[in-house]
Amino acid sequence: MVSEDVYQEGSEEMKRLRDLGERELINWIVKRLDECDGATLPPGDDASDMLFKGRLLMSCDMLAASTDIPPGMRIEDVGFKAITSATSDIAAKGGRPLAYLISLMLPPDMPFEDFQGLWRGFEEAARLYGGKIVGGDINSGKEIVIDVTCLGEAERTFSRLGARPGDILATTGEFGAQAAGLHAFISGLGDDPISSKVAKKFSRPIARVEEALELTKIPAITSSIDSSDGLAESLHELAEFNDVGFIVDNPPVSEDARAYAEKFGVDLFDLVFYGGEEYELILTIKPRFLDEAIKSLERIGGRLFIIGRVVEGGDIMARWRGEWVDLERRGYQHFI
Amino acid sequence: MVSEDVYQEGSEEMKRLRDLGERELINWIVKRLDECDGATLPPGDDASDMLFKGRLLMSCDMLAASTDIPPGMRIEDVGFKAITSATSDIAAKGGRPLAYLISLMLPPDMPFEDFQGLWRGFEEAARLYGGKIVGGDINSGKEIVIDVTCLGEAERTFSRLGARPGDILATTGEFGAQAAGLHAFISGLGDDPISSKVAKKFSRPIARVEEALELTKIPAITSSIDSSDGLAESLHELAEFNDVGFIVDNPPVSEDARAYAEKFGVDLFDLVFYGGEEYELILTIKPRFLDEAIKSLERIGGRLFIIGRVVEGGDIMARWRGEWVDLERRGYQHFI
Repeated sequence: MVSEDVYQEGSEEMKRLRDLGERELINWIVKRLDECDGATLPPGDDASDMLFKGRLLMSCDMLAASTDIPPGMRIEDVGFKAITSATSDIAAKGGRPLAYLISLMLPPDMPFEDFQGLWRGFEEAARLYGGKIVGGDINSGKEIVIDVTCLGEAERTFSRLGARPGDILATTGEFGAQAAGLHAFISGLGDDPISSKVAKKFSRPIARVEEALELTKIPAITSSIDSSDGLAESLHELAEFNDVGFIVDNPPVSEDARAYAEKFGVDLFDLVFYGGEEYELILTIKPRFLDEAIKSLERIGGRLFIIGRVVEGGDIMARWRGEWVDLERRGYQHFI
Repeated sequence: MVSEDVYQEGSEEMKRLRDLGERELINWIVKRLDECDGATLPPGDDASDMLFKGRLLMSCDMLAASTDIPPGMRIEDVGFKAITSATSDIAAKGGRPLAYLISLMLPPDMPFEDFQGLWRGFEEAARLYGGKIVGGDINSGKEIVIDVTCLGEAERTFSRLGARPGDILATTGEFGAQAAGLHAFISGLGDDPISSKVAKKFSRPIARVEEALELTKIPAITSSIDSSDGLAESLHELAEFNDVGFIVDNPPVSEDARAYAEKFGVDLFDLVFYGGEEYELILTIKPRFLDEAIKSLERIGGRLFIIGRVVEGGDIMARWRGEWVDLERRGYQHFI
């Protein structure tokens, strides 16, 4: 359970980070670090190294307890999600992860058991995506801050730039369940089955690495963006970057989000378009390669959701319950 | 001036990060981002990319206001130092920086002017070291947290592992002035000339990139470590890693540190061995290549300080004012 208050409680005998100190903590971590191909530097050295030839991708993603971790979220899931989040940026550009660097700021009162759980989450996700955890940095501070850098490789990249009117608009998954999950955490809706289901989807999102790699094999994708800021915001970014608009005539509504919205009186439209927290790819596709793209994802057990098309002008219109709605820009912004 | 309290004051008209919001801030940053060689992704995309062939180095270094930024430190210098710190890890391994990713957590009350100053510091340092700022992430939070990932390249790396009894122990600079500078900031010693001098050394340390690159040209270095945790702590890490000890018969005492210590009654021994904040290389060198190593640094205007030698056993003994002192391990540790 993640909450600063929790760290004030607990038994006196509970081992906390302040009881270990930085050196012991680093020793614990270094034993668990991996080495990249051709590494000459031992784990725990000032930097990590690898032999590499090709196109290198790099991204980082920072997560802070006060804005990104709802009360009650399991600490393993926080670790899993931090790795997923950085990985998703690499996947959205057509890459596969190679290495992770993890910088941590942690409160000295954090129980060591929680730290171990956090690290288990990192390892589980890294294993899933095929990247190695090779290094990082550790600091004490007032709240939990996790910054994951992901290095990846790609043969062909998917840029944000390249969408053209006439292209098909598609996603690799449905939207709304993760936002419903966040709502469930914040509302503390207990162990209702649909709440548990969406809470799990929020806690354990999967980055679309396999799907992206499969799609790089065909010249179908004209632009791509990770959807973690929410469907509407990501579409606005794509529209602005490419100076185009979108018609979303078939919104990718998650059935779990629908069930949750109905049961708890939450606005489904907001969950789907403005919730965020999904790690799907939003893609524009050349029409003549669409069939091939659909089949290529089916081959690996994935699915392409055709949600609309690229149009001229900057407007983004969505069909919702039979009516056309202007998808205004109001995704979550930090600092405001 | 960096202090959370300052952000509560200031004129009402002062533009703060909350007045801009994340989107406007990102737009401001994206205009200033560089591209790496062979990049296909535009600045501001989900990830950055480059074509690369060879040995890639990677490290990250996180800095938090509450532990790393003394009151009164200029915000430009905070930015400069954050880049220097990540660069120093790459330099210590024999590499030169190629690209930086910067993840930021910033309080919404931070004046935009301060943010611009911070970024100027990043840019100034990146330019000095020859790396490009290519991407990052930005978040709001309770305090300033800066995590810099540095990617570099090396032909031959300097590992922590490799020191052998009989090797010469050397550094690329003197110690104590930076710690004196930190002391000056914390004590608020005003504009005494020596205080100002050491405060500047603390605020604007230089990573030893040129020196490291020059030294990779000769097969002289058996092990290397960045000294930012303090001379004694770094020697202990090197000793532990290599299962050796050190005799430090000629400690690299900064004259500025000596002057400061005398004037303000601070312990010079502590400043030199336990202060930290220097970004020097601590090196072990094969005796027969020592002359060549000295000359190679002189050629580029640097200097090698011969401070002792590697010995068997795990002890680290230093000669201080004519007496031999056991250099115990007590460097600063987070969490304690």
